Amino acid sequence: MTQIPDLQGGCRWQGLAMDGHARTGVLHTAHGPMETPAFMAVGTVGTVKAMTADAVRATGTQCVLGNTYHLMLRPGGDRIEALGGLHRFMDWPGPILTDSGGFQVMSLASLRQLDVDGVTFRSHIDGSRHRLTPAIAVGLQHQFDSTITMVLDECTPFPADHDTARASMELSLRWAERSKQAFRPRPGYGLFGIVQGSTYPDLRAWSAAGLRDIGFDGYAVGGLAVGEGQAAMLRTLDVTVTLLPREAPRYLMGVGTPDDLLESVRRGIDMFDCVMPTRAGRTARAFTSQGARNLRNARHAADARPLDPGCPCPACQRHSRAYLHHLFRTEEMLGPMLLTWHNLTYYQRLMQGMRAAIRDHRLDDHIAGVRAGWAAAED
Amino acid sequence: MTQIPDLQGGCRWQGLAMDGHARTGVLHTAHGPMETPAFMAVGTVGTVKAMTADAVRATGTQCVLGNTYHLMLRPGGDRIEALGGLHRFMDWPGPILTDSGGFQVMSLASLRQLDVDGVTFRSHIDGSRHRLTPAIAVGLQHQFDSTITMVLDECTPFPADHDTARASMELSLRWAERSKQAFRPRPGYGLFGIVQGSTYPDLRAWSAAGLRDIGFDGYAVGGLAVGEGQAAMLRTLDVTVTLLPREAPRYLMGVGTPDDLLESVRRGIDMFDCVMPTRAGRTARAFTSQGARNLRNARHAADARPLDPGCPCPACQRHSRAYLHHLFRTEEMLGPMLLTWHNLTYYQRLMQGMRAAIRDHRLDDHIAGVRAGWAAAED
Repeated sequence: MTQIPDLQGGCRWQGLAMDGHARTGVLHTAHGPMETPAFMAVGTVGTVKAMTADAVRATGTQCVLGNTYHLMLRPGGDRIEALGGLHRFMDWPGPILTDSGGFQVMSLASLRQLDVDGVTFRSHIDGSRHRLTPAIAVGLQHQFDSTITMVLDECTPFPADHDTARASMELSLRWAERSKQAFRPRPGYGLFGIVQGSTYPDLRAWSAAGLRDIGFDGYAVGGLAVGEGQAAMLRTLDVTVTLLPREAPRYLMGVGTPDDLLESVRRGIDMFDCVMPTRAGRTARAFTSQGARNLRNARHAADARPLDPGCPCPACQRHSRAYLHHLFRTEEMLGPMLLTWHNLTYYQRLMQGMRAAIRDHRLDDHIAGVRAGWAAAED
Repeated sequence: MTQIPDLQGGCRWQGLAMDGHARTGVLHTAHGPMETPAFMAVGTVGTVKAMTADAVRATGTQCVLGNTYHLMLRPGGDRIEALGGLHRFMDWPGPILTDSGGFQVMSLASLRQLDVDGVTFRSHIDGSRHRLTPAIAVGLQHQFDSTITMVLDECTPFPADHDTARASMELSLRWAERSKQAFRPRPGYGLFGIVQGSTYPDLRAWSAAGLRDIGFDGYAVGGLAVGEGQAAMLRTLDVTVTLLPREAPRYLMGVGTPDDLLESVRRGIDMFDCVMPTRAGRTARAFTSQGARNLRNARHAADARPLDPGCPCPACQRHSRAYLHHLFRTEEMLGPMLLTWHNLTYYQRLMQGMRAAIRDHRLDDHIAGVRAGWAAAED
């Protein structure tokens, strides 16, 4: 379909079409292509929860995300390296992006102490003491053999006043430079910087310019979807995305709802990750073309219809809503398994639909159509 | 491979070869064939735990077992019937055997009151009051559209003195007759009787003769694997199996370990069901050609070898023991999923091996070879 560019310089994003600010393209990597806009399935400790790797592939997922914080604690970087890397460990030969651990250290670890060189913390599992610096975080991701390595950053809490947000952003910028120094370039592998600066346009601009000066294979927008609300998130995207290089992929970290994806793609974001489809699947919440549904609800108990008629996943092709309801009511593992499969399939089809719409320059109409489907109260 | 016999009279077992008392053949049913000796996967409430129906099929499983007790409580016979039967409900178009509920009433329900006509009990889930009689149990299995219906019986507790065991067996015999009266014959569907009598040869003979007089499509041996130990179980099989009609399938209920299967097939048993492979899979215990392994054990933490090298399941083909260990250590759902898949595959391959060995008249050598593999302490 597309000519594979020379990957000697790292992974390489190739734009195919634009529609307004939205773009579609392919990120070529050492582990194969990822079509963008892309949704990456979250595989925290080396498994997308409740899914075999074959099932993840069947959803249309092309890239999986691993968490450096979780993987450094269990089973550890040395262990994964000795076992041939994360791709072999989890049976995912395709692209793998790993975050740097910074976000989880802030949200999960205890007794964390931040200094200019890094962060020391205790494991949330057994209280053991660990340290992450830019060099350690990048080194761990080398051990994982991650296709895309993320720089270590501090995810600025929300809300933060301007001084706090500025200090945090400047620290992340220093760490980004040290991460770049520690990163070992390999053909088809990439290192992504992370724009911080809370919801302050001047800080986002400063951060983006600093990262561009250092130079990365891709640029993530971090520190969003942390409580600021969709409107503030989209305003921040509006001012941030235009500051990022056109030729590099743009990754909005930890986002989001189906509606967040529509609005962020419209603003030029190429990559996403979020626990939402997998976590929701484990708690009986399904995303469908007619909006979200809670399968625990008794109104599904006798409903012979498929969950989402046009969906190709086994939950929709093989079973009734009544069966899915029954599985959650009896607390059978197959409920989370089937609904995770469905939700990831829904997210991937949402991305496929947007990629096609961008190619055909009809993204606004497409988004309106998706929303009309959600609004149609079918039952 | 074999001529499909006329199924107007019910399901039909066709013998293909014998080796000593052991036999191999095919049970032809309205929902397709089941090669015997067969291991049926337990799908208690309409799902084989931690497995999609496609995964169950991939293990080589040809018949799935449902539990009338569980299914009558949730989602109920009327609901399953309205949704098109259990086959459609759980996406299992192949043969389904359902037990009658008698065993679970004794082991799970509370406040049960036995009378000559049936048993009244309270649900272990919500305390609601229910009743099972032979006609009700058979009627529920009609609603499920079960391929093979089991008569309602009382599973005699162990130990039981001769008088108790005799009274219990006589009650089961009366219920067997009433079950037969309630059963609606349909081409390719079958009703199985259940031999009781504890470990008393005279009672087993009485029960078997009584059931033969009534006449069934198959004969189950019940009331074993309830604490009597393997030696007593096998002695009871020795005296029971020879009393059963040669032309009908013989089903040993709730059995057992891999070694139980070897010894029972040798004695002429054709069908088995047991929660062992699935339950063990959820608790990190794997059955392999080198014996059983507990994947939680730290000695597997760095082991790059496959769990069981010759096994075609995804746990063995795609992953290391280290990865499986990691999944159980991190309590990821994929651990139970992969190990259930493996254990069912192991059980099905054990049955396939015995079927081939019986055809070649080398079952004793084959059993010795399987045991030699278990004894080989490879690690």
